[in-house]
Amino acid sequence: MILTVTLNAALDVTYGVDRLCPRTSHRVGTAHRRAGGKGVNVARVLSALGRGSVVTGLVGGPTGTLIRDDLRTVPGIRDELVPVRGDSRQTVTVVSHHDGDATVFNEGGPHVTPDEWRAFTDRFASLARHARVVTLCGSLPPGLPSDAYAHLVRTAREAGAVTVLDTSGPPLLDALGAGPDVVKPNAAELAAATGCDDVAGAAARLRALGAGTVVVSSGPDGLYAVTPDGAWRAAPPERLAGNPTGAGDACVAALAAGLADGRRPPGVLREAVALSAAAVPRPVAGDVDADLYRRFRTAVTVEDIHAAHPH
Amino acid sequence: MILTVTLNAALDVTYGVDRLCPRTSHRVGTAHRRAGGKGVNVARVLSALGRGSVVTGLVGGPTGTLIRDDLRTVPGIRDELVPVRGDSRQTVTVVSHHDGDATVFNEGGPHVTPDEWRAFTDRFASLARHARVVTLCGSLPPGLPSDAYAHLVRTAREAGAVTVLDTSGPPLLDALGAGPDVVKPNAAELAAATGCDDVAGAAARLRALGAGTVVVSSGPDGLYAVTPDGAWRAAPPERLAGNPTGAGDACVAALAAGLADGRRPPGVLREAVALSAAAVPRPVAGDVDADLYRRFRTAVTVEDIHAAHPH
Repeated sequence: MILTVTLNAALDVTYGVDRLCPRTSHRVGTAHRRAGGKGVNVARVLSALGRGSVVTGLVGGPTGTLIRDDLRTVPGIRDELVPVRGDSRQTVTVVSHHDGDATVFNEGGPHVTPDEWRAFTDRFASLARHARVVTLCGSLPPGLPSDAYAHLVRTAREAGAVTVLDTSGPPLLDALGAGPDVVKPNAAELAAATGCDDVAGAAARLRALGAGTVVVSSGPDGLYAVTPDGAWRAAPPERLAGNPTGAGDACVAALAAGLADGRRPPGVLREAVALSAAAVPRPVAGDVDADLYRRFRTAVTVEDIHAAHPH
Repeated sequence: MILTVTLNAALDVTYGVDRLCPRTSHRVGTAHRRAGGKGVNVARVLSALGRGSVVTGLVGGPTGTLIRDDLRTVPGIRDELVPVRGDSRQTVTVVSHHDGDATVFNEGGPHVTPDEWRAFTDRFASLARHARVVTLCGSLPPGLPSDAYAHLVRTAREAGAVTVLDTSGPPLLDALGAGPDVVKPNAAELAAATGCDDVAGAAARLRALGAGTVVVSSGPDGLYAVTPDGAWRAAPPERLAGNPTGAGDACVAALAAGLADGRRPPGVLREAVALSAAAVPRPVAGDVDADLYRRFRTAVTVEDIHAAHPH
C-alpha cells in the first residue's frame, strides 16, 4: 500500500480570466475547485495509473469538508485524513486565457495545536505499519515543528516503509538526519537548501546529511538522480508547453509506484520523467495525459554518469 | 424598515501579498473572509450607523453557509436570505502591501432556477410590505431574467416602499420602465448604459426612461443628482487615498437611510457624499470611518445647478 501524507491539504481553486491586469477587476469565466496539496495530487496521479492509495494529513473547517467531499470522487483513494479545528487553506490559481500563464496565491493554512499533531502522529504510526511506501509532500501548516517530517520519517522506517520526501527549506533540511530513503527537491529548492548552484555537488551534500537517494527535478531538462550505487541523468524526448506545477507531484507518484514494485534506477527514473512530462500539458496538478505517458515511457533517455560524479 | 436585496451574495475573500507579480506564486500573508455583495455591504454600513436592516437575496451551498455565519456577527441585521441549490460565489481581492493597490476576481455566481426565483419573489413580496425603503444592488446571478429588478421594483412599489437601484448594464436599463425611485450608477456605468459621456445629459436620459431620481457617483469628485425638482452637485472637502470599491455601497446606505427618514436633497446628498468618502480609507467594502463621516457631514459642498441643466 502507498500512503500519501498532506499535512497542509488545500482546496485548489482555479480561475480562468481573459487576461490578468493588476489593479483592475476581473470577471472569472470559469471557476474549478478540487482537493489539493502535493500529497493529494500524488494520490490523484496514482489513481490515474490505476493504483490505489491511502491519503492522510490534516484537514479542518468548511474548506476541509469540501476537500474530503472532492476526494470521495477520486477512484482508489481511501480517506484517512485527521481533523483539525482550524479551516483548511485555499489556493487560488488565476489562468490567463490570453497567454496560458498561471498566477498563484497560496494561503498559509490552519494553525495546528500540539494535541492535533499528537493525534495525527498516532494515526500515522498505525497507517505506516501497512504501508510499503510513504510519500511526505509539501509545506507544513503553522504550529507544526520544522522537524515534523523527521519524526514521520523515523516512524515510517520503524514500521518498515520506504519514505519519499518532497519539501523544501527548513522542513527538508531538518528531516535529512532521520534518513529519508528518497528526497525530491527541484533544482531551485536544492540550491536554496544548500546554498550551492551545482546540482551534483548540492545533491551529494543532501546525501551526506542523511538522504539515501536524491532525485532533482529540473523542469524540461528532466531529472538528476544520485543513489548509493550511482548517478543518472534522465531527460524527456521533447520540451512541452503547459503548466509545470503538477510535474513534481507526478514524479513523486512514479517514484512511489516504482519503489512499491521494487524497481530501481534507471527504470524507475524513466517512468518518473515520462509521468512528469505527461503532467505538463494538463492545466491542473494531479492530472496526467495517459497517451503521452505511454509514448514517453519508451522515449526517455537515461544517461549513466556514475563515473563522472563518484559521490 | 430598510430591506436590502443581494441576488448574487458573495463570500468576499481578501488576500494580503507583498507585491502582485503575474506569472509567479505568492505566499498570502493574511486572508480575511466575510459576507459580501453590494446589498450586504449596504446593510453593514447601515449597521455602522446604528440602523437595523433586513437582508434578503439568494445564497446556497457551503459558501452560502459561510456567508450566513458571518452575517450573524453583524449587529442589527436580520437574515431573510432565500436558499438556492447552487454554491454562492466567492470574490477574491488581492491587496499589494507594496502600493496598496487592489486586484479583484469576481466569480459569476450560482445558476438560479425558475422555481428558486419564484420562491424568492414570494418572500420578497411579503418582506416589502413591511419596508419603507428597498435597496436593489449588484449583478444578477446566472439564470435570472435581465428584467428581474423591474419585477422587484414593481412589487416594492405596490407594497408602498421606496426603491433605490444600484446596478449596471441590461439589468439597469430593463428596470427603468418599472419606475425605480432612485438609481445610482457610477459615471462609467452611466456612460456605458446610455452611450453618452455627458453626465447631465445621460442622467436626463435615465429619467426619461422612467427613473425618478438619478444619483451619479464620480469617485473623488462626489455626486451629481437630478430629481423631478432640480439638479445638484455635491463634493467632499478633500480627496482621499484608499479603496473606492465600498464608496458606492456607502452612498446607497446614506440614500436609503435619508429616504427612510423622509429627507430630500440637498441634505441627503450631503450625507451620501460624507458617508461615501468615509468608506474610502477602509480596506474592505461595507466599512466606514466614523470620525471622518462626522467631520465630513458639515464640510461637504452642495451646489444647486438647477438653472444650468433644466432637464
